Amino acid sequence: MARVVVDVMPKPEILDPQGQAVSRALSRIGVAGVADVRQGKHFELEVDDSVDDETLHRIAGSLLANPVIEDWTVTRV
Amino acid sequence: MARVVVDVMPKPEILDPQGQAVSRALSRIGVAGVADVRQGKHFELEVDDSVDDETLHRIAGSLLANPVIEDWTVTRV
Repeated sequence: MARVVVDVMPKPEILDPQGQAVSRALSRIGVAGVADVRQGKHFELEVDDSVDDETLHRIAGSLLANPVIEDWTVTRV
Repeated sequence: MARVVVDVMPKPEILDPQGQAVSRALSRIGVAGVADVRQGKHFELEVDDSVDDETLHRIAGSLLANPVIEDWTVTRV
């Protein structure tokens, strides 16, 4: 068994209303010094050792992320 | 400027319907070998060097995560 982390983020050119909402809330509660916030998804998978990186990227691109608007990274931890 | 990553995950004892939906979809499309999927949130913050770890944990616990049902990690990258 291996643990795999897949992080999915909106592509840089895509607006991120959730991140912007957090940014505005930070100003409102008086926290200074945070220039930008972007929000994505974080997946933790428990996989057999037989699952290769190609399969992991296929899973990420078909089920976890929308390749049109999101980028992802696959990391074995 | 520093980049900070905050990962927010449902606590282990909390059900995760989104992760379970991904697990079921994997079986349906014929991917074997994935034993468990859990889904959380991934935040990327651009912060001034003046923002200390205590402030980051305060931000995470008040705006990014719900401490009753979620755990989080703060990582400077």
